[in-house]
Amino acid sequence: MIIVMKPQASKEAVQRVLATIEENHLEAHVSDGTVVTIIGVVGDKSVLMEKNIELYDGVDKIVEVTESYKLANKKFHPDASVVKVGNTTIGGDELVIMSGPCAVETEEQVMQTALAIKKSGAQILRGGAYKPRTSPYSFQGLETEGLKLMKQAKDETGLSIVCEVTSLNAIESAVKYVDMLQIGARNMQNFYLLKEAGKTGLPVLLKRGLSATIDEWLNAAEYIMAEGNPNVVLCERGIRTFETATRNTLDISAVPVIKAKSHLPIIVDPSHATGVRKYVQPLAQAAIACGADGLMIETHPNPETALSDGPQSLTFEQFDNLCNDLRPFAKLMNKHF
Amino acid sequence: MIIVMKPQASKEAVQRVLATIEENHLEAHVSDGTVVTIIGVVGDKSVLMEKNIELYDGVDKIVEVTESYKLANKKFHPDASVVKVGNTTIGGDELVIMSGPCAVETEEQVMQTALAIKKSGAQILRGGAYKPRTSPYSFQGLETEGLKLMKQAKDETGLSIVCEVTSLNAIESAVKYVDMLQIGARNMQNFYLLKEAGKTGLPVLLKRGLSATIDEWLNAAEYIMAEGNPNVVLCERGIRTFETATRNTLDISAVPVIKAKSHLPIIVDPSHATGVRKYVQPLAQAAIACGADGLMIETHPNPETALSDGPQSLTFEQFDNLCNDLRPFAKLMNKHF
Amino acid sequence: MIIVMKPQASKEAVQRVLATIEENHLEAHVSDGTVVTIIGVVGDKSVLMEKNIELYDGVDKIVEVTESYKLANKKFHPDASVVKVGNTTIGGDELVIMSGPCAVETEEQVMQTALAIKKSGAQILRGGAYKPRTSPYSFQGLETEGLKLMKQAKDETGLSIVCEVTSLNAIESAVKYVDMLQIGARNMQNFYLLKEAGKTGLPVLLKRGLSATIDEWLNAAEYIMAEGNPNVVLCERGIRTFETATRNTLDISAVPVIKAKSHLPIIVDPSHATGVRKYVQPLAQAAIACGADGLMIETHPNPETALSDGPQSLTFEQFDNLCNDLRPFAKLMNKHF
Amino acid sequence: MIIVMKPQASKEAVQRVLATIEENHLEAHVSDGTVVTIIGVVGDKSVLMEKNIELYDGVDKIVEVTESYKLANKKFHPDASVVKVGNTTIGGDELVIMSGPCAVETEEQVMQTALAIKKSGAQILRGGAYKPRTSPYSFQGLETEGLKLMKQAKDETGLSIVCEVTSLNAIESAVKYVDMLQIGARNMQNFYLLKEAGKTGLPVLLKRGLSATIDEWLNAAEYIMAEGNPNVVLCERGIRTFETATRNTLDISAVPVIKAKSHLPIIVDPSHATGVRKYVQPLAQAAIACGADGLMIETHPNPETALSDGPQSLTFEQFDNLCNDLRPFAKLMNKHF
Repeated sequence: MIIVMKPQASKEAVQRVLATIEENHLEAHVSDGTVVTIIGVVGDKSVLMEKNIELYDGVDKIVEVTESYKLANKKFHPDASVVKVGNTTIGGDELVIMSGPCAVETEEQVMQTALAIKKSGAQILRGGAYKPRTSPYSFQGLETEGLKLMKQAKDETGLSIVCEVTSLNAIESAVKYVDMLQIGARNMQNFYLLKEAGKTGLPVLLKRGLSATIDEWLNAAEYIMAEGNPNVVLCERGIRTFETATRNTLDISAVPVIKAKSHLPIIVDPSHATGVRKYVQPLAQAAIACGADGLMIETHPNPETALSDGPQSLTFEQFDNLCNDLRPFAKLMNKHF
Repeated sequence: MIIVMKPQASKEAVQRVLATIEENHLEAHVSDGTVVTIIGVVGDKSVLMEKNIELYDGVDKIVEVTESYKLANKKFHPDASVVKVGNTTIGGDELVIMSGPCAVETEEQVMQTALAIKKSGAQILRGGAYKPRTSPYSFQGLETEGLKLMKQAKDETGLSIVCEVTSLNAIESAVKYVDMLQIGARNMQNFYLLKEAGKTGLPVLLKRGLSATIDEWLNAAEYIMAEGNPNVVLCERGIRTFETATRNTLDISAVPVIKAKSHLPIIVDPSHATGVRKYVQPLAQAAIACGADGLMIETHPNPETALSDGPQSLTFEQFDNLCNDLRPFAKLMNKHF
Repeated sequence: MIIVMKPQASKEAVQRVLATIEENHLEAHVSDGTVVTIIGVVGDKSVLMEKNIELYDGVDKIVEVTESYKLANKKFHPDASVVKVGNTTIGGDELVIMSGPCAVETEEQVMQTALAIKKSGAQILRGGAYKPRTSPYSFQGLETEGLKLMKQAKDETGLSIVCEVTSLNAIESAVKYVDMLQIGARNMQNFYLLKEAGKTGLPVLLKRGLSATIDEWLNAAEYIMAEGNPNVVLCERGIRTFETATRNTLDISAVPVIKAKSHLPIIVDPSHATGVRKYVQPLAQAAIACGADGLMIETHPNPETALSDGPQSLTFEQFDNLCNDLRPFAKLMNKHF
Repeated sequence: MIIVMKPQASKEAVQRVLATIEENHLEAHVSDGTVVTIIGVVGDKSVLMEKNIELYDGVDKIVEVTESYKLANKKFHPDASVVKVGNTTIGGDELVIMSGPCAVETEEQVMQTALAIKKSGAQILRGGAYKPRTSPYSFQGLETEGLKLMKQAKDETGLSIVCEVTSLNAIESAVKYVDMLQIGARNMQNFYLLKEAGKTGLPVLLKRGLSATIDEWLNAAEYIMAEGNPNVVLCERGIRTFETATRNTLDISAVPVIKAKSHLPIIVDPSHATGVRKYVQPLAQAAIACGADGLMIETHPNPETALSDGPQSLTFEQFDNLCNDLRPFAKLMNKHF
């Protein structure tokens, strides 16, 4: 932690800051400039967190030098993590494809989808049973009934399954059926939910919030991990910007940035990022080419009748072609599926 | 709803769209342009919501003409709502000042604050018992113990109290103590929480999400109101932009925009919007001058030792001066406190 | 300047950084932490600007402590500047109202406007002769002919005039007619234009770029001032964000932030910020209430026929009412017009 | 164009809008809904552009159906354009690599770079002679002297050259030396410069503005093309968002979006987008994998001493490795270099 004093800060002001640092058994290093004085603080700065030193007379600002997340931080865990989900692993040399409908609607829809995506090479079936929708008048999901349909598809195909949870209630139901919990973008800073998901010990797919910085995202992962659950997989799904040509702006740079800052695996969801079916394939290729560990791609037996996010869903034929086109890119990155 | 066809859309494509509209007992009006055909749809469009017409061959895009929120919409409820909270009303000719610490810490802190802000003119005491913090290693709140301290302050001063809730659990505790529930920015699209807050019937202070559009915000209010609870007060507290000179960017225009689109009261929180104490007063004045129904201002007996958000908190003396400076602005807007 | 080393930085890496600092006759202060080493640099850091120390082995990042703008910086010029424009001053106790049409169209339009706004209390007539328009097929301005009409209005009313310039060509014409040059948002980082405007010595109204940070804005002012021209007035006119309810998002906080960081006057343009006529008045009141030195408000004899930005323009009657409503707010801020 | 009336719009209000449409010899199609009336307008809407119909009584909003750019629009020019630059073509089956230093500094620097990048496979040398820098105290470029050094490198290596121009002055010098003009992000809406660049007939590389929407970008291209110059190549170089882990946010989706909306070629600049050397390779791979026609990559003989943007520049060895790694990705996209 670095404390930057104001140009006109008095000697007394500097002394008061130094005294506080010493009282907390930390070490201070003073750089006395012609214009400003800066004070480097060495030791466990968390003990200073509640001192609000930026309010002291003569203090201009505080600059944090180290990140507040520890368990998710590559500096302290340099080796890439591999997260096991059912029979699949994420973060190793498998390229993991999660696919399925935005919302679980019927048994037929889920079963058809599971069989189709399995045939094309996907390892994980996704399907929403609890849907966070902007308007209360949109379809809100089948809840437990939906989870059961997902489980049935898992039993018949051997695919692993991932479902979004939006409340403690939903977690309590989901743990009976799913291989992986998903925390959606809108709940990325629902810290209560993060902690409860952490406690289950199940792998958690943590989607990035629409306006979350990468640091906030890794701090959200830290909430899960601090409950003793290291099985976190990140999912970039687009951030909110001024551009309206796509539903969100896919922050593809998040892939190499996460690889530089964290040991956690990261996958990309081009379906939600763009909201437009025809952009899914080029962005899926881009995601693999820059090092993503997997993809989440929406599919539906009949996108025109999907109850949620139809416009971005692929038909089974489109999905099969996509998987075939993706394999050579995966191979160039030493991944396979 | 308007359906815009692609330039090269075939007659069959147009026919198929028209057929779908008619099957759903809606009326279609076709404008055949030299370049594109547009189709106006008249009637209750919600029945089309699950048809994904943008996926039909030849369809370029769908343009929504009417908002998806109804209960919060000024078009259907032209008169401004006045929400009663304890002995105070928000949205009428009272300018409501909510003040107190970001986090409840001790009995002494809460009691001192309650007495001080009451003397300066505030009507509602705020104080966080459940704190959503970016890092799991920051102070997370006193929970039920904090609620009890708030209630005690209410009993001794007659102030009404508002506390943030972050889970169903928290709601179940809070209803026993508080006059108003607060849904924070990070939970604005925690739809589960919105519904549960709606069911309590208590007034709800709904803070705007960091990257929520005004339409999404009003849809979040709709979730609460759709549970039969019309007592929603909106709170603008800054949105996320590229600018870093302030913690967030106060979207002051939200005040007149909300007044144009909704009948709900709106207050402004300049403390969280800027994160900097010295910007609180000018922005509080600006908020009143553009029509806000109230303010939320952080105060603390000793900001330097606050466990959360000290840098933006005012001392009691600063708060008292602020209130005195604000009154003439309120008077110009025909409000008082 | 602070240099933060990586956790695993070698002694040699630290030595190399220290050697570079010393070779450049600067002083280094080392803080050796348990996790990271930080190095404070004291002296004129501009000599290090071309060394790219962030590329040195073992260097994690560079943290700038002081701003790159000097002439615009309040730290070195604590007293507020007052800029003289014709018979008016901006930044003192006059609240300056600039008003007029977005684009100069006809003699009648300009003359009518000048007379009307003068009567209501405005001191400066604005009118665009060179229009930067998104589409090449929109009206581009009357150029020199427009400047002459503005001059004529000035001669007949005694109002001062401000016109936007978009090229060296335009500057060379404008200096013959106007009292103040305007640099528009789209040209805020057209550094060539800034320098040429600086050389004229005329007061310059510098609008904030749509995505310019406050630091970049003050650096743009520095370009003008570095040419020996201290007469810069800043104009906040909305930034680009994700919100679409208004054309841009008025960053009202920029007013107190600029007052804290710079000595230059700042005015606010609610017409361009919102693009909607009915939001102009509440935001004009807000601007005054948070300390703005003036306003820019679009007016037009007949907004329905305006060739540019009609939807945000006020009629003369609306403008007159607005001015009357603004005066008590100005008075509360110890300003008058 | 669609005109949406307010719910309570009177018959007279609708009649007035219809009258205006007819007076302008356009055709109106009315859809009379239970809640709102919408009016479709057919014909050349540009004649309505100056009517400000949104100001008419009873009008709620105007929805544009067709884009304002024509020459850059794929709807009217479905075949992809191929732009010839020296001996190279952009937009065909060549993957074009532009490389070189951010700023031209010395003869030795330029010559070394030209030879090195040619050997690795690049076809175009880039180098800035006119540098738009945030601070007036940063290095501003060698101007004409820099252009001459670029020309010399072209003569000795056969590479084509591209240089940024920032004023009419710079264009007048550049046309004597370069194969392609570059308009930088900060000047993307410097419409005067766009027109002047258009008039030269030289190929123009048009970088996207930091906060420009894709529609505004294509309208900027339209300014160049409307001068009779169809040789425009677009360059995505990152947009401004709230994320600070990278200098800007590379909007990779812009590649498929541009391919869907325009026939113009598009390249990607991962160096400026991220500002961080280690992110250049993964993003270069991503750009190719999603269909970019080329790349702009910064190189420097010794990045540690570069006068501009050293931290994002590659050494020659890094660049050579990058080119080798990129070829298989290019091959998968049926491109070569």
